Amino acid sequence: MSGNTFGTLFRLTTFGESHGVGLGGVVDGCPPGLALSEADIQRELDLRKPGQGGLAATARKESDTVRLLSGVFEGRTTGTPIGFVIMNEDQRSRDYSAIKDVYRPGHADLGYDAKFGLRDYRGGGRSSGRETVSRVAGGAIAQQLLEAEGIGVRAATVELGGIEARGRDFAGALARPYFSADADTVPLWEERVRAVKSAGDTLGGIVEVRVSGVPAGLGEPVFDKLDARLAYALMGVGAVKGVEVGAGFGAARLLGSGNNDPMLADGFASNNAGGILGGMASGQELIVRVGVKPIPSIALEQQTRNSSGEAVRITIGGRHDICAIPRIVPVLKAMTQLALADFVLLQRRVGR
Amino acid sequence: MSGNTFGTLFRLTTFGESHGVGLGGVVDGCPPGLALSEADIQRELDLRKPGQGGLAATARKESDTVRLLSGVFEGRTTGTPIGFVIMNEDQRSRDYSAIKDVYRPGHADLGYDAKFGLRDYRGGGRSSGRETVSRVAGGAIAQQLLEAEGIGVRAATVELGGIEARGRDFAGALARPYFSADADTVPLWEERVRAVKSAGDTLGGIVEVRVSGVPAGLGEPVFDKLDARLAYALMGVGAVKGVEVGAGFGAARLLGSGNNDPMLADGFASNNAGGILGGMASGQELIVRVGVKPIPSIALEQQTRNSSGEAVRITIGGRHDICAIPRIVPVLKAMTQLALADFVLLQRRVGR
Amino acid sequence: MSGNTFGTLFRLTTFGESHGVGLGGVVDGCPPGLALSEADIQRELDLRKPGQGGLAATARKESDTVRLLSGVFEGRTTGTPIGFVIMNEDQRSRDYSAIKDVYRPGHADLGYDAKFGLRDYRGGGRSSGRETVSRVAGGAIAQQLLEAEGIGVRAATVELGGIEARGRDFAGALARPYFSADADTVPLWEERVRAVKSAGDTLGGIVEVRVSGVPAGLGEPVFDKLDARLAYALMGVGAVKGVEVGAGFGAARLLGSGNNDPMLADGFASNNAGGILGGMASGQELIVRVGVKPIPSIALEQQTRNSSGEAVRITIGGRHDICAIPRIVPVLKAMTQLALADFVLLQRRVGR
Amino acid sequence: MSGNTFGTLFRLTTFGESHGVGLGGVVDGCPPGLALSEADIQRELDLRKPGQGGLAATARKESDTVRLLSGVFEGRTTGTPIGFVIMNEDQRSRDYSAIKDVYRPGHADLGYDAKFGLRDYRGGGRSSGRETVSRVAGGAIAQQLLEAEGIGVRAATVELGGIEARGRDFAGALARPYFSADADTVPLWEERVRAVKSAGDTLGGIVEVRVSGVPAGLGEPVFDKLDARLAYALMGVGAVKGVEVGAGFGAARLLGSGNNDPMLADGFASNNAGGILGGMASGQELIVRVGVKPIPSIALEQQTRNSSGEAVRITIGGRHDICAIPRIVPVLKAMTQLALADFVLLQRRVGR
Repeated sequence: MSGNTFGTLFRLTTFGESHGVGLGGVVDGCPPGLALSEADIQRELDLRKPGQGGLAATARKESDTVRLLSGVFEGRTTGTPIGFVIMNEDQRSRDYSAIKDVYRPGHADLGYDAKFGLRDYRGGGRSSGRETVSRVAGGAIAQQLLEAEGIGVRAATVELGGIEARGRDFAGALARPYFSADADTVPLWEERVRAVKSAGDTLGGIVEVRVSGVPAGLGEPVFDKLDARLAYALMGVGAVKGVEVGAGFGAARLLGSGNNDPMLADGFASNNAGGILGGMASGQELIVRVGVKPIPSIALEQQTRNSSGEAVRITIGGRHDICAIPRIVPVLKAMTQLALADFVLLQRRVGR
Repeated sequence: MSGNTFGTLFRLTTFGESHGVGLGGVVDGCPPGLALSEADIQRELDLRKPGQGGLAATARKESDTVRLLSGVFEGRTTGTPIGFVIMNEDQRSRDYSAIKDVYRPGHADLGYDAKFGLRDYRGGGRSSGRETVSRVAGGAIAQQLLEAEGIGVRAATVELGGIEARGRDFAGALARPYFSADADTVPLWEERVRAVKSAGDTLGGIVEVRVSGVPAGLGEPVFDKLDARLAYALMGVGAVKGVEVGAGFGAARLLGSGNNDPMLADGFASNNAGGILGGMASGQELIVRVGVKPIPSIALEQQTRNSSGEAVRITIGGRHDICAIPRIVPVLKAMTQLALADFVLLQRRVGR
Repeated sequence: MSGNTFGTLFRLTTFGESHGVGLGGVVDGCPPGLALSEADIQRELDLRKPGQGGLAATARKESDTVRLLSGVFEGRTTGTPIGFVIMNEDQRSRDYSAIKDVYRPGHADLGYDAKFGLRDYRGGGRSSGRETVSRVAGGAIAQQLLEAEGIGVRAATVELGGIEARGRDFAGALARPYFSADADTVPLWEERVRAVKSAGDTLGGIVEVRVSGVPAGLGEPVFDKLDARLAYALMGVGAVKGVEVGAGFGAARLLGSGNNDPMLADGFASNNAGGILGGMASGQELIVRVGVKPIPSIALEQQTRNSSGEAVRITIGGRHDICAIPRIVPVLKAMTQLALADFVLLQRRVGR
Repeated sequence: MSGNTFGTLFRLTTFGESHGVGLGGVVDGCPPGLALSEADIQRELDLRKPGQGGLAATARKESDTVRLLSGVFEGRTTGTPIGFVIMNEDQRSRDYSAIKDVYRPGHADLGYDAKFGLRDYRGGGRSSGRETVSRVAGGAIAQQLLEAEGIGVRAATVELGGIEARGRDFAGALARPYFSADADTVPLWEERVRAVKSAGDTLGGIVEVRVSGVPAGLGEPVFDKLDARLAYALMGVGAVKGVEVGAGFGAARLLGSGNNDPMLADGFASNNAGGILGGMASGQELIVRVGVKPIPSIALEQQTRNSSGEAVRITIGGRHDICAIPRIVPVLKAMTQLALADFVLLQRRVGR
């Protein structure tokens, strides 16, 4: 595989660059009979739109309008592949000569040149965050399947710029700036973002994903553990540097007696496992946390190298986010949904 | 896929249960002409053998002798699949009636029953740590390819029972108890292990993997990012609850100016990225850390449930490790090698 | 996999229905640096356009204009996925009530209902021959890779309506009606087609594919034999009922001494093998023949069944081809190209 | 993929060479709860044993004893991978210097050297017919799943050395020499085989596979058509040069009115389609025919080339079959079973 298809049975294949003609994808393997409309996808796309996160947001103006091309008939999925496109509207001609031959620190530029021997340098090309628009569209389709199975995925920001959210209210996060897990923490974050922005710098944070309704046994016991696939799905989102499940790295400091979740007749007494035991769902809520690095495009001058191997200095202009949060939140939710939809279908083959 | 094959081009398929007839696997896609002998594999297998880690080690006695069945001719790989087996010697008949219908807390028992409707309860069956013997054998084969490419993988324990190693000496770790990254920390860990063991409890730790010689550009830019595949590979090892790359979760608290690694004419000024930018290798050393939970089989009585849904109490007897470390260290190394071998072959198709 | 992706490393994923919004696909894994334009693809698409084959041709009017959405920058492939769409223009509203609940004999209608529980009945939906437009586009992209490797694929009709072509001139076939392998046979075929058409009936034929420049060793020795993958690629085209290589079924009647191709110092004395030995290319020209059934939409009244299980009679109106030939010829060529492009990339991983 | 794994959900991975230590495989994805014993597999292996086909059979003596290593507990499959081995007993040391550097006409020798740069020349190595022992074992496991689903696969020889069987009795074929579809034809075949053998030559034939109980809708509509996957499965068996479904190549000479199978309220009036419409099962019996070339190892002197590119003459000694039939018959049955088992599991994901 060449890395642009996600999933085994519920499969999303994506394409598109930041400043190309358009982006899009194909969902193959979606079961027939699910309700699906462009509005179902658009609603999710709108969550990652520029402007959604207030201060941290990009200045780029894109309506990100999705068009369904196939796989839906009379409002329902047919079981055939669902093709969709989001055409690029904002391809205004800019001067990229400043970065054409220079590797921006913290960016994929160097890797692209090393791997492919050439790159579409306009706005980051395929490595632009804009690529995630297809993931969110795919996740919205997966969501239709998951909802029919009673599985609900929610994501919220639990830390921003080193300031942890005081509460864990996932239900309300969708309506809050930064998709914050806590309303009272928002002003603190806004203050932090304002300070960092005025200093020409950027910041990172931590996002938590919670999944309810996952049936016990979902997952696989060896290489394709439920947590392994979730780690793969989430670490594959740009800017993510860490993934942990349940107690996560903290579990490394607990004793077995403290880390084991005692089982009760009707559930568990705790959830350090984050809902996964031996790679398979335990029936508890899934809890996954993701560490997001500060976005690398800072306004400050930086030391770097060009493609001729010369040391140069670069100052990155243009429209840029201060933080991948909140825009990354719907993307992480979508990747979780895609991973789970695949397992839901995989599980069906096990039965007799 | 059903979760027992790892890799796209360099593929390991494994089989075997703790108390079945034998374990083994098939490596398909290994290039021809590499030197390979049973001794090359045995050497790695011996690293995860019971007894390797001193106090933390299991009491089970297995010689874990690998036998190569195919794919090697006159001391070299032929390009055809490499089959290998490790027969189980220690299948002494035990009485499993105590755990046959009871779900051990922190174990995969519940998931197996929920997923498959039945399970081989002898010693954990397929979910036993013994399954990893095939991973280590596969990793040893991958190592022959990686060495030919100048890529070296090392792993060491950097934290045990909450006590961090004071140094980071990876070269010497192989010869130290717990594969410790620091010699002076070993006595502290031994003391901690002794105390926990006498309390009937278990503990966890953190392992770090370092990879040298990775050519810039290795990896894929979207779903199959180098870090995404490593996270998948490592989170798929039992007991792992977190994976982070470079500065990892710590990056979420840095500013962009502090997290970006300045590029120099001939390298980088720092390595917060852990050697991966935009999913592709930067040419720096890869740095990945893994959080390992305490093993769930504690000697203390625990509260749990049986397959009839009744609350019961269980005390787990028998031979058990106090900690997955050090035995998990060669496994994490092997999984890293398998993931990298796959990318090495994937990269070859990109050229012109 | 859900059957809409072809290939392992050079991968085409397609979508689209006959009367949906549009059709298209994504080619993932195409190496960077190949020249590629919309004109390169359009040229191949035009070969399967209605009207190409004269008398046998469909009356449907579609310009089948391809649009490239990604993966090409400054006239060259970038190594990132190449997305393309062909929008449906001719979606004129027809009355499908006659076939909505009736299974047309020889068509996929029954299977769709049985498999998916519903179907897009407009013009055959996904099972329409129109689906192949994406295959031809994908094949045109593969062609850029193959040409760079010195591999040339040609296809021609060698039998139509039971009348075999007298000659085997593949070079000129592209310019002849029915893509005939022989100019002199064309009038006989035209006469046959005219007679069958006036009788309200349809007919089939045999297409031969020849590939030059295939390096010895291309292919795989066991399940993924070169001939196995070609058979898979070609049998997967609608209307194909048989695939044979070299002497094919005729080899079953030869003695070993007559079937074996003697090797000379610089080649072979014959080519009964069709260029494939033990699943790998021998370095000779590849020869594959494909049997194409008459298309099932005849103008005559037929006996059939509806979705309620009642026996009914049906007469299929509307625009229809008399024969899948010549339109299937570029499709068979494209599938051969896709299969070979995949092997070209797979072969690269074998080298040292 | 590297060509030694067959299937998407029901997956067989095989390994082993003719004169290596052993052969075997892993079946991953087999559902839990199916009855399975070594005897179930041994019964099928015994059908392809040397000596089974009387005059046409090889002189090699192998007991071909299978050993199950994992995936079965208390007589039932557990859902975990099923590992099995067949150790090579007859590794008698022969002198291979005559063929070590010479390419036998009609064999894979040339391709191996071209592809891998080296080869295990002992008895054909991985390209020996002996490789199929693992396919038959895998097919036997698939059979347990298919039988539970009411699907029955039978194969019989319908033509040998150009002499067609007079009848089509598949039920009795298992007990007849050559697995003949007709008892009365056997003496004619024996006479033909005797004559060809005494002339130092070899011959081919045609095998037909029939499958009952296939539910309508099994298969996929585009690339992974049921017939496409069967063609792939069967053309991937050594010596197969052609595959056709239903009327096959004969359909190319029929008119649409004659080829279409009229549907009745409770079935079909004919079966030219061979049970497959649009890539999906119609509910009728599947009919697939396979053309098998004469085996290339003839006793007569042949003209060929060595690895230095010199023209040489070769006479192949040793034990050899006169015909791939009957030993190929259980292999073709097994490949059909493997292909169908995969589709049975794939179909489960479509339901709601």
